[in-house]
Amino acid sequence: MKRKIRMGMVGGGRDAFIGGVHRMAAALDGEIELVCGAFSSTAEKSKASGEDLMIAPDRCYGSFEEMIEKEKLRADRMDIVSIVTPNHLHFAPAKMALLNGFHVICDKPVCLTLEEALELKELVAQTGLTFGLTHNYTGYAMVKHARHLIKEGLIGKIRKVIVEYPQGWLSFPVERDGSKQAEWRTDPKRSGVAGAVGDLGTHAENLAEYVTGLQISEVLADITSYVEGRVLDDDANVLLHFHGGAKGILTCSQISNGDLNHLNIRVYGELGSLRWTQETPQYLVHRSVDGQRIFEPSVGELSPVANAATRLPFGHPEGYLEAFANIYRNFARTVLKQGNGETPSEFDLDFPTIDDGIRGMKFLEAVIKSGKSNNQWVKIE
Amino acid sequence: MKRKIRMGMVGGGRDAFIGGVHRMAAALDGEIELVCGAFSSTAEKSKASGEDLMIAPDRCYGSFEEMIEKEKLRADRMDIVSIVTPNHLHFAPAKMALLNGFHVICDKPVCLTLEEALELKELVAQTGLTFGLTHNYTGYAMVKHARHLIKEGLIGKIRKVIVEYPQGWLSFPVERDGSKQAEWRTDPKRSGVAGAVGDLGTHAENLAEYVTGLQISEVLADITSYVEGRVLDDDANVLLHFHGGAKGILTCSQISNGDLNHLNIRVYGELGSLRWTQETPQYLVHRSVDGQRIFEPSVGELSPVANAATRLPFGHPEGYLEAFANIYRNFARTVLKQGNGETPSEFDLDFPTIDDGIRGMKFLEAVIKSGKSNNQWVKIE
Amino acid sequence: MKRKIRMGMVGGGRDAFIGGVHRMAAALDGEIELVCGAFSSTAEKSKASGEDLMIAPDRCYGSFEEMIEKEKLRADRMDIVSIVTPNHLHFAPAKMALLNGFHVICDKPVCLTLEEALELKELVAQTGLTFGLTHNYTGYAMVKHARHLIKEGLIGKIRKVIVEYPQGWLSFPVERDGSKQAEWRTDPKRSGVAGAVGDLGTHAENLAEYVTGLQISEVLADITSYVEGRVLDDDANVLLHFHGGAKGILTCSQISNGDLNHLNIRVYGELGSLRWTQETPQYLVHRSVDGQRIFEPSVGELSPVANAATRLPFGHPEGYLEAFANIYRNFARTVLKQGNGETPSEFDLDFPTIDDGIRGMKFLEAVIKSGKSNNQWVKIE
Amino acid sequence: MKRKIRMGMVGGGRDAFIGGVHRMAAALDGEIELVCGAFSSTAEKSKASGEDLMIAPDRCYGSFEEMIEKEKLRADRMDIVSIVTPNHLHFAPAKMALLNGFHVICDKPVCLTLEEALELKELVAQTGLTFGLTHNYTGYAMVKHARHLIKEGLIGKIRKVIVEYPQGWLSFPVERDGSKQAEWRTDPKRSGVAGAVGDLGTHAENLAEYVTGLQISEVLADITSYVEGRVLDDDANVLLHFHGGAKGILTCSQISNGDLNHLNIRVYGELGSLRWTQETPQYLVHRSVDGQRIFEPSVGELSPVANAATRLPFGHPEGYLEAFANIYRNFARTVLKQGNGETPSEFDLDFPTIDDGIRGMKFLEAVIKSGKSNNQWVKIE
Repeated sequence: MKRKIRMGMVGGGRDAFIGGVHRMAAALDGEIELVCGAFSSTAEKSKASGEDLMIAPDRCYGSFEEMIEKEKLRADRMDIVSIVTPNHLHFAPAKMALLNGFHVICDKPVCLTLEEALELKELVAQTGLTFGLTHNYTGYAMVKHARHLIKEGLIGKIRKVIVEYPQGWLSFPVERDGSKQAEWRTDPKRSGVAGAVGDLGTHAENLAEYVTGLQISEVLADITSYVEGRVLDDDANVLLHFHGGAKGILTCSQISNGDLNHLNIRVYGELGSLRWTQETPQYLVHRSVDGQRIFEPSVGELSPVANAATRLPFGHPEGYLEAFANIYRNFARTVLKQGNGETPSEFDLDFPTIDDGIRGMKFLEAVIKSGKSNNQWVKIE
Repeated sequence: MKRKIRMGMVGGGRDAFIGGVHRMAAALDGEIELVCGAFSSTAEKSKASGEDLMIAPDRCYGSFEEMIEKEKLRADRMDIVSIVTPNHLHFAPAKMALLNGFHVICDKPVCLTLEEALELKELVAQTGLTFGLTHNYTGYAMVKHARHLIKEGLIGKIRKVIVEYPQGWLSFPVERDGSKQAEWRTDPKRSGVAGAVGDLGTHAENLAEYVTGLQISEVLADITSYVEGRVLDDDANVLLHFHGGAKGILTCSQISNGDLNHLNIRVYGELGSLRWTQETPQYLVHRSVDGQRIFEPSVGELSPVANAATRLPFGHPEGYLEAFANIYRNFARTVLKQGNGETPSEFDLDFPTIDDGIRGMKFLEAVIKSGKSNNQWVKIE
Repeated sequence: MKRKIRMGMVGGGRDAFIGGVHRMAAALDGEIELVCGAFSSTAEKSKASGEDLMIAPDRCYGSFEEMIEKEKLRADRMDIVSIVTPNHLHFAPAKMALLNGFHVICDKPVCLTLEEALELKELVAQTGLTFGLTHNYTGYAMVKHARHLIKEGLIGKIRKVIVEYPQGWLSFPVERDGSKQAEWRTDPKRSGVAGAVGDLGTHAENLAEYVTGLQISEVLADITSYVEGRVLDDDANVLLHFHGGAKGILTCSQISNGDLNHLNIRVYGELGSLRWTQETPQYLVHRSVDGQRIFEPSVGELSPVANAATRLPFGHPEGYLEAFANIYRNFARTVLKQGNGETPSEFDLDFPTIDDGIRGMKFLEAVIKSGKSNNQWVKIE
Repeated sequence: MKRKIRMGMVGGGRDAFIGGVHRMAAALDGEIELVCGAFSSTAEKSKASGEDLMIAPDRCYGSFEEMIEKEKLRADRMDIVSIVTPNHLHFAPAKMALLNGFHVICDKPVCLTLEEALELKELVAQTGLTFGLTHNYTGYAMVKHARHLIKEGLIGKIRKVIVEYPQGWLSFPVERDGSKQAEWRTDPKRSGVAGAVGDLGTHAENLAEYVTGLQISEVLADITSYVEGRVLDDDANVLLHFHGGAKGILTCSQISNGDLNHLNIRVYGELGSLRWTQETPQYLVHRSVDGQRIFEPSVGELSPVANAATRLPFGHPEGYLEAFANIYRNFARTVLKQGNGETPSEFDLDFPTIDDGIRGMKFLEAVIKSGKSNNQWVKIE
């Protein structure tokens, strides 16, 4: 039976940033309905935020515990819990949601430690519930097409990968000037052991592994906190070794002044290379000694997976929210079909899961360890 | 009182293209709810489409007449009618909706003739209802910022405008190969007297007048139907004169093979110029003899109107749907506020209206007249 | 016998601009040697300029007449005369050079009137001497490759051509602020009947006809002098009809504030399109409904004519001077081989001639006529 | 006294690549004259090459030793020796030229070992002769402008530098397929201990140090020979530490399939960043949290050093040869002025010297050492 998936949200109240992104992404395709939320840390604030969102007051809860307890009792209860809080508040609601039979879609990094991530994986396995992680950048059609082309052998065996995620917005100590976003992201209690490496590096790692189909085997990292007084890293330069022999560079930064949100990747194979950059996500460039070709959504014959991630005819640019929405839509369709006893298609299942979360935590911990131990190679199991 | 605006849709059933765009645009911000529709030409087809969209079967109507009649009787009746049919089916539902107290948001061009457009304007005036026209390209933040900068005098008095809207998808006679989109767009009965000029030229005209704040006073047009057997123009090269002395060029085309959806504009003033192109809509380029500067959403200090049209932090690209959604959101907020007896803000009121529709019809008729009368200048009153 | 071609120059003294360009272009390949000149309007000034250029004082002449007379008597006399004076000073030295047995390479437009141009053509025919015209933009490798691809049928029958040559440096009345370049270019006595149309429009016309292999059959022009007090046009918007049915737009401008030297062309055929822009001359873009491909010098398999116009391996950008040098080199090789009784290759002969000059004059006169007679179509015989 | 500097060349016969580049660069400005050469390894071959170049047969020598001995005896003897042979043949002719009173301009890297480079430095100091090294990429106007802007403080204290020099032409074992260029560049006997690091890495290092004004203090390198059977590195990923605290990444590669000659640099300071890429060398991008600005030659007010390196008005692109010619021109002017007892200007002196050669050798040796010793930090004294 076709029906809208009902979503409850943890976090995302007034002042938050990423909550609104999740809501727009979930709303875009008309397949998900926000029905309740524990938007803020108090019932009152949560209700105020819920009012903005036109959520019934009795479904605006003061805590995720309350939301889960009360929703469980409703016939029209939420199907999925979307967790959009700062990093340190991912684990507890995710765990409780799973334990109470709710599917979970969670912002990244999945939690604060690898240990927590492994516990969630265990719970997902036990409950059979669906767990999505919003590594949204893999939602772009041209990222999916790159993955497809590499799988098909277009550029041959991969030799080298350069993946970068530079931002510049923390070039100044804005965490001391009242930026809430900056505050929690630079605070080890709320962000975990990593700053830029957790916030951006894990996206870059996820993108690289998704596109290439390879796994990073070890890292050697030079990490820095450039801004005085900042405890967490705001920059990292990382050498990469992949299983199978490819090598690479990953750099992520919050002090690359003038870079906006410049995630980009270049993958070099024996026969050619592919390049993609998030700020103009509609272009995927293939280069080889024979020349240069640019792929664009809906132009010519593309992979089915790219087409499935595209909503518009060519020349009508889709952006960040559309890519984010692809994660939500695929997650929701998987939840719906499994609920209906149907088998999700390979396209439905194309969203990041707890396994991506675990990769991210392993990567993050290895980078920090290398950075703090005189730049030695650290293996990722 | 804050509440979701309830929308009924005319057209947009299975196989249609633009209907889905309107629905995603309307859904994005969570302020509009699709509650009913006359999606197709029969009740059966309409219900099938409605099922896809999870609309209650009793609100999937077999005709717009039925929809308007029945919705009128409901307490939870739709507030607005969204018209997404081919051009020849805009006028009748728009008129009936207005006559029955429903606000209207309509795809462009507003109707088939200037006469019809003037009749709608009269009705809008009489009823006091709100009429929106989805000239969606003016919904982009950087288009709004360009308009703002010109108003502020950044580039001085305008001398020259070049606006282009080339597409290439009708380079071949695809209307005879089963493309429904191509069929009606090349059919004078359904599209009106103009082909490319109606479909694309009116967007270009609207963009030029919106950005510059100037009105075109006369046109001289060279129009062509390149593809054998095609009755309507698929290409036009138009010289422009603006009130106040500026001149320009407008070209629109469906046979510019290799162009996707390459709407773009350059405005030259005495002190500098501004350039924007739809396929990378996040960039607005300012050039002068002193150099080149690029504006991007959320970067540095931008105009309030640009900020109001932006949902994301810098470097997170927004695209076609977000621009389209700006039209819907502003329209819906205006409807809501006026319904609540509040005064809409200038940002709420920033959407195209019946007046833009009338400009479009005047432009279109003048271009076709010039093109068919030996390329003479034809005035636009 | 291989030897350097000896060049005398008319014009190009201190303060001149284009003279230095010609000298660098001639010098680049080491096949031409500047041996004498009538660089300025007096013997004294000419000697001063010659000293800068390390020319023997006795070969720095006070007038072109003196240069031609005296050089004729030398055993090591110049082979070719390079004319780099303002437009009104092209005809007389060209004529005298030809009458005295010297080959001529001349800046464009070839002279002030079509009549003069036809007289030069007659002289070239009578004398059997070689006449080169520095429509330098056709010297770019990627322009030549575009011509080749079109000839080969890559984009099918041509439907539409858009060629633009906007500059912005005359946005202000700099001719009254001491700019010598601006002075003569805006002065009908020295520039002829056309301003932007002569200086830039003829380049655009030449580029369009070179690349497409088509000739313009008629023009309809809207010409303007935007800057108060300026007599000659500083902007023109021109509709084009080509023999064979293609149509197009040509615009040239000196008041497109912010445009540097933005010559560019798009050619649309039935099967695809080609695009080239002078400010990044190393890229030639081919687009069709199947996608986008970028040609670059020395990348993959290119046409022999493109390779012949390229000096460097891929990724080593060549620019304006190299394109200009291609004209000089081909001209000089033709002169040398014909002097040696050899047959120049098709690549040697690939430079603009007096015929291009005549096309330019016809175009220019037709545009001005249309612009001054109420924007009617004017045929080009 | 103004006169042309007379140049003799070592290497650069038929089949060579870089010799022709040096000759065009030297010829462009008409200030240097090629008068003699030891172009090839035998007198016969040298004469054949000399004939192509229109050099008098008696000045086409069979060895550099012969050239130096015989030229010394001529009144019109060469002033400078240009050395364009493979790396292993730089040291001997440079040394002999200096010992015999000739200035030297030499391709990079300056020689095979740091020891040799130090010996040359000693000789330069003793003889007072001028030694130029063709790190040509610092000849670009926008590179010089970047250096200037950084010196002026535009981007504040430098935090991070990313410099890349990827090429792809050695992605396949072309050294075994008859490519002479590939043969010697992959042969340790002729190239030295480094492959990509010597050929490309030293350019990248030189560019980074030139632009930033900082020196690299230590490196940690991951070097690879991807192509089977290749002895020298064809790829290196290098972490950088600079004196003063900045960090960075340098990567150079010959197996980055699809990259042409993609040298590029990004410098991040506390206040903003500058970006430049060699394949579109006319653009220098400045970015900060306030937005993006693009510098171009001759546009607006630029630094005198950038203007001195620019020959053309804006919009007339200059490329690789013009940048190379800037090195030659400055070197020649310095030689000329010092010969005339005049003081060269700071612009004349703006070319790479033996000191740059020594930095390059130190860098190269440190990178190889780090790469071969388990990726430890290696200091550069």
